[in-house]
Amino acid sequence: MALRQAVDWSLYVVTDAGLSRGRSHVAVIEAAITGGATVVQYREKHAPTRQMVAEAQVLRELTRRTGVPLIVNDRLDVALAVDADGVHLGQDDMPAALARRLIGPDKILGISASTLAEALQAVQDGADYLGVGPIFATPTKPDAAPPIGIDGLRLIRQHVSLPIVAIGGINATNAAEVMAAGPDGIAVVSAVVAAEDIAVAAQELRAMVNASRQRREAASN
Amino acid sequence: MALRQAVDWSLYVVTDAGLSRGRSHVAVIEAAITGGATVVQYREKHAPTRQMVAEAQVLRELTRRTGVPLIVNDRLDVALAVDADGVHLGQDDMPAALARRLIGPDKILGISASTLAEALQAVQDGADYLGVGPIFATPTKPDAAPPIGIDGLRLIRQHVSLPIVAIGGINATNAAEVMAAGPDGIAVVSAVVAAEDIAVAAQELRAMVNASRQRREAASN
Ligand code: NI
Repeated sequence: MALRQAVDWSLYVVTDAGLSRGRSHVAVIEAAITGGATVVQYREKHAPTRQMVAEAQVLRELTRRTGVPLIVNDRLDVALAVDADGVHLGQDDMPAALARRLIGPDKILGISASTLAEALQAVQDGADYLGVGPIFATPTKPDAAPPIGIDGLRLIRQHVSLPIVAIGGINATNAAEVMAAGPDGIAVVSAVVAAEDIAVAAQELRAMVNASRQRREAASN
Repeated sequence: MALRQAVDWSLYVVTDAGLSRGRSHVAVIEAAITGGATVVQYREKHAPTRQMVAEAQVLRELTRRTGVPLIVNDRLDVALAVDADGVHLGQDDMPAALARRLIGPDKILGISASTLAEALQAVQDGADYLGVGPIFATPTKPDAAPPIGIDGLRLIRQHVSLPIVAIGGINATNAAEVMAAGPDGIAVVSAVVAAEDIAVAAQELRAMVNASRQRREAASN
């Protein structure tokens, strides 16, 4: 509970073994955290479960040491096995209300929403935050829903008070524009894990999120 | 606990969507149970989690109604989601001792073993039964370990008192020979789910297992 309240959603980095240029998850995520990542999601769709548990375990040790929440994509079994801080579920993953019953009230439950209806359902099902997107088209998830654009993000933001992390094709060239629509942070894959200098890439994105949030706070005063 | 004691391992039928000739899991398993299947395993490696949960849920209702234990392969999240009677884990799945901690003492934990070392480790890790094999080469699991033969099965049987279900290439032409090595039952995939008449195929195999177990009991008196 304390953890769920305290999460800083500014820069949410999602692993992708195929985009990491041969660097290990732990090397990638250590650099991302050094650069300012505030949340880490372990996402792996095709490895054997034993490998997933082993990889997530290494990230669990790293994120615990650095005080960054660890979320596991889709696989509630892997999340429970490594005592992750939460799970993130897409619309093809376990139904959210069922997942909430299995993980209990204290773990973080994140739900992907690409429409307002999905967002409102996720709120009702007990989500702690929403991953809203894809904002832009992205090559990393070819099976993703069509992009919802900044307008789609703004619409959901206007109707949902839960934390929102925008995802899908976000990078340093569009992060300021995305943040202006009001999410709590941005989730990135290739913009960080595929970067030549991961820490610098994360630092640049984090600075943009920070600047945007400061402008927002100034405007609301 | 009561359940774990009472399981009849005679004929353990494993689902395989690709081998079922377009018939639904529920149609296949209903016929298999009619023919005498005593345990059902839901195995699905590539579907989205939401689909797995939905399919397993339908099998859960059927197996509950018919009084047959339902085991889920690999996916502890799916097993917990549908309140299956247990999980079955291969050597690439979640480590057995960790799985036991997550499912608690009352759910059935099955472990695949293809060597005596794996079998003894599984016993130590808290397995309730072993799936021993592959006895013969099988096209349904091209990534499986090399066949261990009847001799490999006999060796493990001599050293392990837990229930053993033999698996891998077992059908009506070799089931009697397999049962003579002393397992508690046989696990089959294509010999049942790919059969033209599933109930008849299950009935034939079940009769062979029964005959073998009766001979064994007669011999030990
Ligand atoms: Ni796959």
